[in-house]
Amino acid sequence: MIIYGDIGSGNCYKIKLLLSLLKINHKWVHVDILNKETQSADFLSLNPNGKIPVLVLEDGRVLSESNAILGYLAEGTKFIPTDSFIKAKMYQWMFFEQYSHEPFIAVARFINKYLGLPPERIEEYHNLQPKGHKALSIMDKALVDHDYLVGDQLTIADIALYAYTHVAEEGGFDLELYPNIQAWCQRIREYLGYVDMI
Amino acid sequence: MIIYGDIGSGNCYKIKLLLSLLKINHKWVHVDILNKETQSADFLSLNPNGKIPVLVLEDGRVLSESNAILGYLAEGTKFIPTDSFIKAKMYQWMFFEQYSHEPFIAVARFINKYLGLPPERIEEYHNLQPKGHKALSIMDKALVDHDYLVGDQLTIADIALYAYTHVAEEGGFDLELYPNIQAWCQRIREYLGYVDMI
Repeated sequence: MIIYGDIGSGNCYKIKLLLSLLKINHKWVHVDILNKETQSADFLSLNPNGKIPVLVLEDGRVLSESNAILGYLAEGTKFIPTDSFIKAKMYQWMFFEQYSHEPFIAVARFINKYLGLPPERIEEYHNLQPKGHKALSIMDKALVDHDYLVGDQLTIADIALYAYTHVAEEGGFDLELYPNIQAWCQRIREYLGYVDMI
Repeated sequence: MIIYGDIGSGNCYKIKLLLSLLKINHKWVHVDILNKETQSADFLSLNPNGKIPVLVLEDGRVLSESNAILGYLAEGTKFIPTDSFIKAKMYQWMFFEQYSHEPFIAVARFINKYLGLPPERIEEYHNLQPKGHKALSIMDKALVDHDYLVGDQLTIADIALYAYTHVAEEGGFDLELYPNIQAWCQRIREYLGYVDMI
């Protein structure tokens, strides 16, 4: 299989992390967002939405949306609960990630780290801060009594949310405020097969 | 089971539509977003993210995020494909809905229909238009050769995307531009067990 992505993007890194935990062989093709490579005709033929990551299987079938790719790759493994309610809670966190976490934390990080906090985006950057902190606060409370977001096993919900959370400081979010998130990040870093973003 | 929601919200209506297709008995408790009922202490104890819909099972377990609720309620029914790749494509569309469709089409509709297009949000409203049209255009192309978004069976991806798409005109999006979407909407309206938004 081929993954088209940028390892510095949390949405792509989450795929890399799962592939590493599952020891799945793959080819990684780097796609440069800043150079608008996701908007080329070739790339748009893979994903008309012009976003990474994209998974291409050996038979040519194509899958996009990072969390859908996680679900496909983890199917039948210990990273997806078998109980239907617990699996639904896992997807709850994954939809939370894409709607209430990534649009604030990933975007603030992008503005700060990749664009260098340009004057015309400083107001937007500051507006993202309370929204990102709200997401982190919800996660921190959920982790008070649990090792992982869904029960006591690592699932793809943890992988999805770890991706941008562990580098949230690059978006201006002080993780010292969230001790349960910090302990959870440490737990994931120590998991067998873990691979770093860089 | 109890659903907390507002039937005029697409995210809530998608649950109502699935419950109707599956003939599942439930109690519907109306929650008024404009009156900030989702921000009350009682409601936040159900969903700390302060959003509807929320599903509460008879034993008290709670599930939020509309698309996670769809996945839970449709588990084991014909509305979720059994093939793992086709199921992943279904989730691809559902993540697309929450990231690349709802934030533009639902928000434009909210500003126009619920807030009456106030002057201070007109610029935002106009900025949402090209992004919403991009999402509709991607859907329209995907429906050229298929009756439904994932192969030729109705799945919860169709239900998730139908919810705000069929009322996109209330957000200023002219559906006459998208003949395949129009035919798909008509197909869903004719589906056995269909229930309208109002």
